[in-house]
Amino acid sequence: MAEDYARVDEGALCDYTAAILRAAGMGEEGARIAATVLVASDARGIESHGVARLPQYIKLIEAGVLDPAATPVVERQSASTALVDARNGMGHVAGDYAMRLAIEKARAHDVGVALVRNSNHYGIAGYYAMLALEHDLIGISLTNSSPLVAPTRGRTRMIGTNPIAVAIPTGGDLPFVLDMATSTVPVGRLEVYARKGLPLQPGWAVDADGRETLDAEAGRQGALLPLGGTEQTGGYKGYGLGVMVDMLTGVLSGALYGNSIGGLWDATVPSDLGHFFMALNPAAFGPLDRFKDHARDLLRRLKESALAPEETEILVAGEKEQRAHQDALEHGVRLYHTVVTAMNDLGARAGLDRLPVRPDLS
Amino acid sequence: MAEDYARVDEGALCDYTAAILRAAGMGEEGARIAATVLVASDARGIESHGVARLPQYIKLIEAGVLDPAATPVVERQSASTALVDARNGMGHVAGDYAMRLAIEKARAHDVGVALVRNSNHYGIAGYYAMLALEHDLIGISLTNSSPLVAPTRGRTRMIGTNPIAVAIPTGGDLPFVLDMATSTVPVGRLEVYARKGLPLQPGWAVDADGRETLDAEAGRQGALLPLGGTEQTGGYKGYGLGVMVDMLTGVLSGALYGNSIGGLWDATVPSDLGHFFMALNPAAFGPLDRFKDHARDLLRRLKESALAPEETEILVAGEKEQRAHQDALEHGVRLYHTVVTAMNDLGARAGLDRLPVRPDLS
Repeated sequence: MAEDYARVDEGALCDYTAAILRAAGMGEEGARIAATVLVASDARGIESHGVARLPQYIKLIEAGVLDPAATPVVERQSASTALVDARNGMGHVAGDYAMRLAIEKARAHDVGVALVRNSNHYGIAGYYAMLALEHDLIGISLTNSSPLVAPTRGRTRMIGTNPIAVAIPTGGDLPFVLDMATSTVPVGRLEVYARKGLPLQPGWAVDADGRETLDAEAGRQGALLPLGGTEQTGGYKGYGLGVMVDMLTGVLSGALYGNSIGGLWDATVPSDLGHFFMALNPAAFGPLDRFKDHARDLLRRLKESALAPEETEILVAGEKEQRAHQDALEHGVRLYHTVVTAMNDLGARAGLDRLPVRPDLS
Repeated sequence: MAEDYARVDEGALCDYTAAILRAAGMGEEGARIAATVLVASDARGIESHGVARLPQYIKLIEAGVLDPAATPVVERQSASTALVDARNGMGHVAGDYAMRLAIEKARAHDVGVALVRNSNHYGIAGYYAMLALEHDLIGISLTNSSPLVAPTRGRTRMIGTNPIAVAIPTGGDLPFVLDMATSTVPVGRLEVYARKGLPLQPGWAVDADGRETLDAEAGRQGALLPLGGTEQTGGYKGYGLGVMVDMLTGVLSGALYGNSIGGLWDATVPSDLGHFFMALNPAAFGPLDRFKDHARDLLRRLKESALAPEETEILVAGEKEQRAHQDALEHGVRLYHTVVTAMNDLGARAGLDRLPVRPDLS
């Protein structure tokens, strides 16, 4: 039976994506970086943040509210800190630049914190945090985003799904990579459930009046609930984490924050998002090998602990995405046929041949 | 009608607590610090971490597994980092010392990260984060703790309720102070519900087989669920946050971690807990006044946003605790009569008169 998705080699998908971005006005290096981040998202199984978003990025560029050719500049810095102005360019380019700057500072001074203002969507937060791993550093990446989540006791979309990503080297094949939105689910989940006519789970969303709802369409008209759901089930903690991320990104960098940020993919105003990147050197606190050994041991203990009924395996943060990546390396990146079609449309406009999908082996 | 609690002046409670701790072997300064943190917890309405825990600290001291006279020492440091050995002393003393060291480093170099190993329970995480506020710095405080939480899909108590505290100055009366366990509820909640025979809420606990339970006694025999509850409602995110805290505290400092940590108030082995403290200078990234203005504005927007049905007010992180503190300043710190009795028992053993409670005005 034919699958709903095609398989594309990671390198080929990256080249094709970069070519589309170059045709849209990005420079050689910027296009390569943005393509790498987008494709990494698909390869890790997070298709909501991958090349499926290309049409929206292109729309922002064509509407003149995102400058594809912008290169980020350092506005101010000290030994361990920096503020980067993304100059309203692609968030991926500014994110990659600022995270590498934080890494450089951590390599020299054990800690580096780089903030970015005047930026746009940067894709998956985890990508930047993971850049620290190859340097045996701990990486942290946060961003604010368009308002979608209601505060506890409220009903208005006031803050973004503001993700927290933390990557920790373990010396083994399996690093610890937490990459989580501070809402219970992403807004795309409501869209999928509404399309399929499925009921939501408790703790996912409120309707426009602020009442918790299991109706996907009502949730789409309302707002997402923060991680934890309603107040009784600890939603005020997810709400607090979401505001914390906004404080450390939008507020700290001098970008927009809260409901001053425009709607998701709004093509009428620049996004002016803020990002936070940090790199920390574990070797500053003790022998690096001990750190990695203990980190690996903690993950092993968790994975080997007793299972709940009907479960077959305990996972640790980032493991599911790592397996998806392994599968993508072996069999190609999974892309829904609808996404391949959209890529081909963008490719045709950029004067490209069709995206080279792998032969369907089913 | 008489209340179930007495009121005690904050200063008097602090003096009395310090005297008990001195009698147990703590030095003058250490006793003052530990008493200040414990009483601050009660004053902020977090009685689970306040003077009610004094008998347990004393028990650890008398059992010889916590050294009351220990003073923390810096084991290694760089311009922006430090590792502190608590020498198995009170966590409050090491926490206060290390957070002030992080603050000192941030004042000189914009960022300071201080880790503590070989420590004990340090009370409320928020206390240390808040020390940064008077210096117009952002403060962060994390600690690991005795295993009580099951990993998603698991059923064993593998990680602690590992709190995250972040304090952000706003220039106004109301700073942002997030201080949250990464479990949905603290273990004490199950004890209270079991005693009262009340059903739990979904997402709070699993029984010993790893099945979600609303039975408080079954939950006490099982494990806490991470923030978010079960896998379907996002519990793997709270699980990830709890492990992240353990990585940044126990693993990074060289202390114990995960289920290698002893049980809560276990008086047979030293705790060897790890703490993480960070201070960050917002003025490194732009004008301090703009930062505080925007932080205050974000909180104002949240508080003024539309209410859900039957709600009367939206709160921001730390607001409830701040009101409790205001009430404590005006009317005295609330202490349950059972806690006053326990304090008087400890006081009598230390040769003290009775704790001076305020006259009952009811």
